[in-house]
Amino acid sequence: MATTTTSVPVLTSTPVLTADDLLQDWQRNRRLTRRTIEAFPEDKLFQFSVGGMRPFAEMASELIRMTAPVVEGVSTGKWEEYKPAKPTTKSELLRLWDEQTVELDSKFPTIPASRFSEVDKVFDQWEMPGIATIQYAIENEIHHRGQGYVYLRALGIEPPPFWKRD
Amino acid sequence: MATTTTSVPVLTSTPVLTADDLLQDWQRNRRLTRRTIEAFPEDKLFQFSVGGMRPFAEMASELIRMTAPVVEGVSTGKWEEYKPAKPTTKSELLRLWDEQTVELDSKFPTIPASRFSEVDKVFDQWEMPGIATIQYAIENEIHHRGQGYVYLRALGIEPPPFWKRD
Repeated sequence: MATTTTSVPVLTSTPVLTADDLLQDWQRNRRLTRRTIEAFPEDKLFQFSVGGMRPFAEMASELIRMTAPVVEGVSTGKWEEYKPAKPTTKSELLRLWDEQTVELDSKFPTIPASRFSEVDKVFDQWEMPGIATIQYAIENEIHHRGQGYVYLRALGIEPPPFWKRD
Repeated sequence: MATTTTSVPVLTSTPVLTADDLLQDWQRNRRLTRRTIEAFPEDKLFQFSVGGMRPFAEMASELIRMTAPVVEGVSTGKWEEYKPAKPTTKSELLRLWDEQTVELDSKFPTIPASRFSEVDKVFDQWEMPGIATIQYAIENEIHHRGQGYVYLRALGIEPPPFWKRD
């Protein structure tokens, strides 16, 4: 009989990220998004856009409305949007942003371990496990920030370095 | 003596993603990026841009050049860029994209568990653990795809739905 070759073990079940790793990645991304907000001149932040899309302030406000509620929802199963008065100045937008930074750091570590894999109907719309909801929120932020980079370039402004997350 | 209140346990060390979860998330993202490439008319894919940025074909080519090499590097510690002949048609770009899809599915599961936390000098430039390098590659893709969405909107074309990843 011919010898059979043993194949390399498939290590798909290796854990690669903990809850804290994910929180840190989100906060690193949020620091870059904050720099992107800061890079806009005040009037352009609220008025400028390309292709009929929303100004970057509206995208950033969407992120502010979602951050804590996503963590609260994954944590408790209660899905309620956060609706602060719409910011109209850059400093007000950044103040709300920074409030959510603190909120995220305090809420995220209280998510019960079991909730990351439980499936919820998120904001009455999408059925997803907790971890997928958090990943979606982070990916949505990266997506919109990339759009903000195009707005900045179209305005002749150098966006913050993509790799800088401190 | 006063009674002390026990605080909620901080479950930061809970594993939330396995290697396979991360691979699946990447492939879900890659399917959406593929749809974004497909949404461009051929000439616009290679020529259109906003704010002096690169056309979307060049961004997609960058992603093609990085995908397998990132996985190979994290797996083996050898960091070598993949440099295929520059695609000049949409079908050629999509063919290279699909090749990398297969490559990613076959290579990713062979990454040794220990390599996700080992720090390498990635492409002679950035010192990062394996997991951070893979996250960076995925985030870089989401970032550029978001920019592709602005190009499509500026061309009057509806981008693919962001939530659709099948």
